[in-house]
Amino acid sequence: MTDAASQPLAKAFNEETLKRYIASQPHLHQIFGNDLSDVRVDEIGDGNLNFVFFVTNKQAALAFKQALPYSRMSGGARALTCERLAFETAALREFGRLAPDYIPHIHHFDTEQSLMVMEFLSPHIIMRKGMIDGVEYPTFADHISTYLAKCLYGTSDFALDPSTKREMVAYFARNVELCEITERLIFNEPFMASDSNRWTSPALDETVHAIQNNLALKLRVADLKYKFLTRSEALLHADLHSGSIMLTADETKVIDPEFAVFGPMAFDIGILIGNLLINYYAQEAYATADNDRAAYRFSVLKMIEDIWNGFFQKFCALWHEGRTGGAYQGTVFTEQNGAATAALNSVLDDYLDNLLQDSIGYAATEMIRRTIGRAHVIDVDMIKDDEKRADIEKKILGFAAQILQSPKKYKSITEFLEPAKQDI
Amino acid sequence: MTDAASQPLAKAFNEETLKRYIASQPHLHQIFGNDLSDVRVDEIGDGNLNFVFFVTNKQAALAFKQALPYSRMSGGARALTCERLAFETAALREFGRLAPDYIPHIHHFDTEQSLMVMEFLSPHIIMRKGMIDGVEYPTFADHISTYLAKCLYGTSDFALDPSTKREMVAYFARNVELCEITERLIFNEPFMASDSNRWTSPALDETVHAIQNNLALKLRVADLKYKFLTRSEALLHADLHSGSIMLTADETKVIDPEFAVFGPMAFDIGILIGNLLINYYAQEAYATADNDRAAYRFSVLKMIEDIWNGFFQKFCALWHEGRTGGAYQGTVFTEQNGAATAALNSVLDDYLDNLLQDSIGYAATEMIRRTIGRAHVIDVDMIKDDEKRADIEKKILGFAAQILQSPKKYKSITEFLEPAKQDI
Repeated sequence: MTDAASQPLAKAFNEETLKRYIASQPHLHQIFGNDLSDVRVDEIGDGNLNFVFFVTNKQAALAFKQALPYSRMSGGARALTCERLAFETAALREFGRLAPDYIPHIHHFDTEQSLMVMEFLSPHIIMRKGMIDGVEYPTFADHISTYLAKCLYGTSDFALDPSTKREMVAYFARNVELCEITERLIFNEPFMASDSNRWTSPALDETVHAIQNNLALKLRVADLKYKFLTRSEALLHADLHSGSIMLTADETKVIDPEFAVFGPMAFDIGILIGNLLINYYAQEAYATADNDRAAYRFSVLKMIEDIWNGFFQKFCALWHEGRTGGAYQGTVFTEQNGAATAALNSVLDDYLDNLLQDSIGYAATEMIRRTIGRAHVIDVDMIKDDEKRADIEKKILGFAAQILQSPKKYKSITEFLEPAKQDI
Repeated sequence: MTDAASQPLAKAFNEETLKRYIASQPHLHQIFGNDLSDVRVDEIGDGNLNFVFFVTNKQAALAFKQALPYSRMSGGARALTCERLAFETAALREFGRLAPDYIPHIHHFDTEQSLMVMEFLSPHIIMRKGMIDGVEYPTFADHISTYLAKCLYGTSDFALDPSTKREMVAYFARNVELCEITERLIFNEPFMASDSNRWTSPALDETVHAIQNNLALKLRVADLKYKFLTRSEALLHADLHSGSIMLTADETKVIDPEFAVFGPMAFDIGILIGNLLINYYAQEAYATADNDRAAYRFSVLKMIEDIWNGFFQKFCALWHEGRTGGAYQGTVFTEQNGAATAALNSVLDDYLDNLLQDSIGYAATEMIRRTIGRAHVIDVDMIKDDEKRADIEKKILGFAAQILQSPKKYKSITEFLEPAKQDI
């Protein structure tokens, strides 16, 4: 962590200074129109790290996100460099270039003020909340699998020339502070005794102890961590859970990639699947007399299958279209004969098979850390009844631990989901 | 390539300006003493990219290396950023911290002048030249295996905390220009039709054609290239051939890491082995009536075995001592029971087995590119007799192609070297 005091301090905005700022920026002024008198500023209080303002008038509605040199949640106690917003903006711009339909439009970025202004998403809501409410998202699997295929393929050595990619790697490798959080919260603390961990106690004590003493499981997690640390395959969102997605029935937008860094493709896919599976298990607690949530629960599993299968198909299509990047470069593999095609297909099959195994591994790691580590998710934490919650958490941990301790290779996403179907 | 004209131009030194420069730098002035009148400056003309001056007087002897914004060999036609010397200096300092015995001492670095001043190595000679002359290096395998173990382990996630490593990755990932040369000259051009390639023609035409049309071989090379592009395992020298090593019977110094970048550990090991094997094959042509070079030839194979086996042993020792880095971190794996030890040993065995297979792959790739690509080595190129040279080159290519086209896994370095023993 950097010393907060040593950093150039961007001033926290309030309603008045934000309005004055808009008036001072011709580009923003123009968006809101000549008359700024009706501009309304509301601070939205649900970010952990940053300040977010929704700014509206009769002509426009924009979201202003400001990073101060500390974590918002800590009230100033925890120093964090403001540069995290620059990494987030750079990642949004890169993903926006590759998959514009799924990224909010960025209108403005001010390094000095550590301020980013983006499209105000409405009536989109955070996916996690929607899923808890049982809202169906019929287009989501198609959208997010397109986003994943385009962004992961598009920032990999299959698409980029090596020099361009190295420069991007160099830029995002400087995002050390947020990477350190990822490494600690996902791969370290949950698998050792740490004051940061919390779980439903005493109900889960034994399960947690068993996980933290399961050598095979911890070696698998260490292998997944080593891959996170060393494999610069593609630019990751690196925090792609259902709280980083805003959507409607027709539209999907990925937000908050402040943890962005180059890493293994499987990480983004796995984190997403892990969070969807947590929601799947939690649905049991949301059953009411009217709605036992059984249909919704199974639609979540179907969604996971569709995401992987959609990603698989779209990634293959991109691979077959081009391979313009440094790996498997055009000129080396332009043979159009059957043997060459078959050999290249077999390389791709192996690549995607390894990607599936590692995605499954990251999904299971995420399920454990969200249940016994520092940062939980509301899908489960909102369940007030301790016994019911512990019961669900045990199922989540049992499913995830089973995956991580076994050397099993999964032939398909369906095979991986089978035990989850049996669990309920 | 960057436009040479757009760069801040460091002025090329000559004898007079270099003397004046020394007088202006108190630290250097002190090394040469009060009297600079006897300082002698000799330009050494054997670098491809940089200018090197040997500067001596009765009190001191130093090597001055200057990078100008173009490649020395091109006479100014080929633009290259001067920053390459900063990467080289940073790598020498990092390797010097980890393995001080094997790195020349750096006395001075001047960004503005793009000038680095280091220990003058004497009576050390370039290893490639010594091997051509049949000089024995009885301590080399021990030295270089120590260097490799300390530097590769020491800059990996086994030793470094992730934030420190990410910052180093970020710095060296900016070394794009020289990485581009590595990627093109080693992995691309030799395996396709390219005007840059050259080989003993027509004797090798058929062999070259066969290599460039061997799909299995090219897929293996593409896989090795993908690993070079994506696996940030350790800080590589990235040009560790026998021309980057200066030595005596007792001392070994690694120089010229201007291509330094984070990449797969196997790359450095493989490039070194590949160059030693080329020399092994070339020895056949150096036989005289007095000395058939048979003993020397076999000492080269023995040297390669000792390098790998020494590296293996020293790397294992470092791993067992600590694992203080982000991967397999202390707190997670401190169990001292038999099961934990066995499991960790098995992880290490797998890691080193994969490292051996990939090292062998990079060695074979290097042997091919040095024979049919742009940059040859004098071990073979100095053989005047076309027929004899082509015969040796065919053996080199045959050995390397056999390795790259086969899915064989080698159990040991000895098994890998077996066909080379049979070849002569």
